[in-house]
Amino acid sequence: MPGALDTYVRNQEARLLEELKEFLRIPSISTLPEHKGDVERAAHFVAESLRAAGLEHIEVIPTERHPLIYADWLHAPGKPTVLCYGHYDVQPADPLELWQTPPFEPSIRDGNIYARGASDDKGQMYTHIKAVEALRAVHGTLPVNVKFLIEGEEEIGGASISQYVENNPEKLKADVALVSDTSLYQEGIPTLCVGLRGLVYLEVEATGPARDLHSGLYGGAAPNAVYGLIELLAKAKDSEGRIRIPGIYTNVAEPAPAEIESWKKLPFNDREFLEKEVGSTRLTGEPERTVLERIWSRPTFEVHGIAGGFTGTGAKTVIPAKATAKVSFRLVPEQTVDGVVSSFKKWVADQTPAGIRTEVRMLSGAPAVMVNPDHPAIQVAAKAFEEVMGRPTVFTRNGGSIPIVGDFARHLRIPTILMGFGLPDDGLHSPNEKYRVENFYIGIKTVARFLESYGQVRQ
Amino acid sequence: MPGALDTYVRNQEARLLEELKEFLRIPSISTLPEHKGDVERAAHFVAESLRAAGLEHIEVIPTERHPLIYADWLHAPGKPTVLCYGHYDVQPADPLELWQTPPFEPSIRDGNIYARGASDDKGQMYTHIKAVEALRAVHGTLPVNVKFLIEGEEEIGGASISQYVENNPEKLKADVALVSDTSLYQEGIPTLCVGLRGLVYLEVEATGPARDLHSGLYGGAAPNAVYGLIELLAKAKDSEGRIRIPGIYTNVAEPAPAEIESWKKLPFNDREFLEKEVGSTRLTGEPERTVLERIWSRPTFEVHGIAGGFTGTGAKTVIPAKATAKVSFRLVPEQTVDGVVSSFKKWVADQTPAGIRTEVRMLSGAPAVMVNPDHPAIQVAAKAFEEVMGRPTVFTRNGGSIPIVGDFARHLRIPTILMGFGLPDDGLHSPNEKYRVENFYIGIKTVARFLESYGQVRQ
Repeated sequence: MPGALDTYVRNQEARLLEELKEFLRIPSISTLPEHKGDVERAAHFVAESLRAAGLEHIEVIPTERHPLIYADWLHAPGKPTVLCYGHYDVQPADPLELWQTPPFEPSIRDGNIYARGASDDKGQMYTHIKAVEALRAVHGTLPVNVKFLIEGEEEIGGASISQYVENNPEKLKADVALVSDTSLYQEGIPTLCVGLRGLVYLEVEATGPARDLHSGLYGGAAPNAVYGLIELLAKAKDSEGRIRIPGIYTNVAEPAPAEIESWKKLPFNDREFLEKEVGSTRLTGEPERTVLERIWSRPTFEVHGIAGGFTGTGAKTVIPAKATAKVSFRLVPEQTVDGVVSSFKKWVADQTPAGIRTEVRMLSGAPAVMVNPDHPAIQVAAKAFEEVMGRPTVFTRNGGSIPIVGDFARHLRIPTILMGFGLPDDGLHSPNEKYRVENFYIGIKTVARFLESYGQVRQ
Repeated sequence: MPGALDTYVRNQEARLLEELKEFLRIPSISTLPEHKGDVERAAHFVAESLRAAGLEHIEVIPTERHPLIYADWLHAPGKPTVLCYGHYDVQPADPLELWQTPPFEPSIRDGNIYARGASDDKGQMYTHIKAVEALRAVHGTLPVNVKFLIEGEEEIGGASISQYVENNPEKLKADVALVSDTSLYQEGIPTLCVGLRGLVYLEVEATGPARDLHSGLYGGAAPNAVYGLIELLAKAKDSEGRIRIPGIYTNVAEPAPAEIESWKKLPFNDREFLEKEVGSTRLTGEPERTVLERIWSRPTFEVHGIAGGFTGTGAKTVIPAKATAKVSFRLVPEQTVDGVVSSFKKWVADQTPAGIRTEVRMLSGAPAVMVNPDHPAIQVAAKAFEEVMGRPTVFTRNGGSIPIVGDFARHLRIPTILMGFGLPDDGLHSPNEKYRVENFYIGIKTVARFLESYGQVRQ
C-alpha cells in the first residue's frame, strides 16, 4: 500500500508543485491592512483545496481580523481523530531589495522553491491537505478521522484561533494534533520536535526631558531618553550574554539528562552554524551552555527594535524626549508568563537611570510547551517518518513559539505532533525564504504514512 | 541722538512686527527638499529687506543648496566695518501636533511671538537689518561701514557659507563680525557670549548577523546588531554622565578662575533649570561640576537618535542585522576635531561587542571658539547693551556651536560679537518656539546703539 501512495505522489509531483506555487503567489501578509483582501483570497484558496481533497463541512469562519477555516472527514468510526493545523498567512517581505526574485513570484532554483511563506507555513500546511487528497485517491477512503483548523493570524499573534479553540472543545475533539511548522534537524534527518519555547513580547518606552532639547544648550546636564533606554537595556545581559535580570533563571527547568545526551549525538558544528546560518563573526550567549541548549532550553532576552530621536539623513542635534524599544523573552519549561513579566517590570523600575521615566507594555505572552515523546501518536509518527526517509527519527526542541500547541494542550487536552519538513536555513521571516521541493513531497508521503499507521493503532 | 532712535523704533513697533511676521510665515526649512522653493522665497525676502534698509550691492548668491545674500554700505571712510551675519533658514517643525498654533502662522501670546524661526534666527538676524534702517531713517547715514552676509544653510551644516568666507576674504574684510543667534542669560540681563562649544557629529552603524534572523530559532546564540550597538554606546558614559572614552578629556582647558568666579555670580537655580527648561525628574552629568560648567565648558557625548530592527506597530520577532545611531561630541577649548574623532574611532574598535562589526562615519566637525572679552568692539558692545537695558552686561558662554564664528576667525582673522536677544526657554528646534516681542525691539535699539558707539572708536 505505501508503495501505491508513493507512486501516486511521484506521478503527481508537477501538478502538486504548480498548485503550491499558486498558493504562494497570494501575498497574504496578515499584519498589513492593505493586504486584507489577499489574506481573504488565501483563505478561500485553502477552503477550495480542502474541498478538492474530499474534506466535508467546510467553513470559512470570520473573525475580528482574518478568517479561520474548518473542515472534517469523520467516516472512520472506531478510529482515532487527527486535528491538522496550519496557517496561511505570512510575514511581511521587506526589505524587498534583498530578494533575488520577487517574494510572491515563486521561483525554483537548485531544488528549492523561493517565496515568502514557502516554508512558513504554506508549503508545510499544504502537505496535510495533499496527504489526505493522496490517501483518498489511492484508497478511496481515509484510515482515520481528520479535522482541519487553519488560521490566518499566526504571524500576528493568533488571537482568533486561540479564542476559537477555547470556545469549541467539543467540535475540535481529537486524539492528537498534527502541526507542520518546524524543520528537519538537518537535510535528510527525520525530526520530531517535542519542546517549544514560549514568548513574552513587550514594549519599553523611556521619557527624558519634557520636549526634545537642543544638545548645545542642554547637553551635559539634561537626561536623554535614547541614552537612558540604552543604559537600561545594556544592563539586561552581561558581556557574554547571560541575562542579569533577577528572577529570570529562577524557574528554568534543566532538560532531562537523557535529552541532553541525545542532543550531544546530533550532528552540530558551531562554526558551520555561525558561518552558514548566522553569518556573523562570533556566536554569543551563555558560554557554559552548548549552542543547542542556548537556543532550545535556555531563556533569552532580545531587543527586536529601537527607535528614538532623529534618525533621518544628515544631522540634527536634539536631546530626544522619547525612545521606545521592542523586547522579548523566550520562555522555557517551568517559567511562567506572569513571573517573567513581573521580574522584568521590577527590574526596569529598579534600573531606570536617574532623570528618565519608563513604562512597560506587554503585547503578548505564552509559556513553553513540552510533548511527551513516549505518547503512542508520537511513536507512530516517528516510525512513519523513519520509513519514508530511511533514517531514525530524532527528537529535538525548537527555540521558537507555536502558541496553538499550548492552546491544544490547555483546552483540548491533546498532545501535538510537531512534524516539520522545513530546513534550518530556510530563512523564515527573512528575504529569500525557501522550501526544499523534495521535502514538500516527503512531507505529503510522511503525513499520509502517519495517518495510515495511526489508523492501525488499537484505541 | 539715542533718544531719537528709541522714539523712532517705538513709533514703528507695529510695522516692524508685521514685517517680522511676514518673514516668519515663510517655511524656509533648509533640510527638506520639498521646501526648497520656500527657502528661495525667504532669501528674496531678506534681499528685499536689505534693499529697503538702504543697503547696496545686494547679491543673492546661488550655492549648491540654498542662496547666500550679500549686501554692504561703505560710505563711512575712516570708520570701522562691521560684518553682520545671520541665517534665514529654520529647523523642521515636527512633531506638528505639539504646536499650540501652527509653526508658520506667527501668533502673539503673552508678549511672545510663536513661530518656527522666531528666535532661531529670523527674529534675531532681522534686528540687524532693522537697526540699519532705523539709523538711516533718523540720521540719513550710518556711523560705520556695514557688510551683511546671510545664509540659508545654518541648520544643515553651513557648508556653502564656510566655503564662501574662505574664498572671499577681501570682499568680506571687516573689523568685527556681529552675530545675533544666542540668548540673554536671562530676561532683562544684557549678555555677550564669549565662548562657543564645537561639534563633532558622527554616525555609528552596527552589523550583527548577515540577515535579520528569527529570534526563536537563533535567540540565545546569534549576535543582535541593535543590542550590540546598545551595549557599545552604554559604555560611553558612567552612570553619572562622565565620558569614559579614553582621550576625550585629555585636552580640555579649564576656564580661567575669573571666568568661573563670574559664572558663580550669575543667577542660576538648578531646580528651576530642571523643572522649567528641561522638564525632567533629575539633571544628569558630571556631579563635581556646576550645571553652567557642564553645559558651557565641558565636553559632551550625546546620542541624538537610534534606529534598528522592527519598530512598527505590534510585534515582530527578529534579531536585527543592522542598527544605526547618530551621536555627537560638543567640544571645548583646546580639544581638536581630529583628536576627538580618532579617540572615538579607537574606542569603538576596542569596545565593539563580540560578533558585531561597527563602522563610524563623520558627518561634520568644528572646534570650540573663544572671543577675548577685552577686545575694543566687545567692550563697546557691552556698554551699548548696558545703556539700552539699564543693567551691566554679563559675559557668558554658550554650549551650542556657531561654526561661522570659527570661519570668521580663521579666514578673516576677526573676532565675533555674539549679541543675542533670545531667551533660554525660547524652545529652539522644539515645538512652540517663541521670541519675546520686546526683545525684538531691544535688539534693534541695541544693535543701532552699538553701531553708533563703535563709529566713535578711534581706529
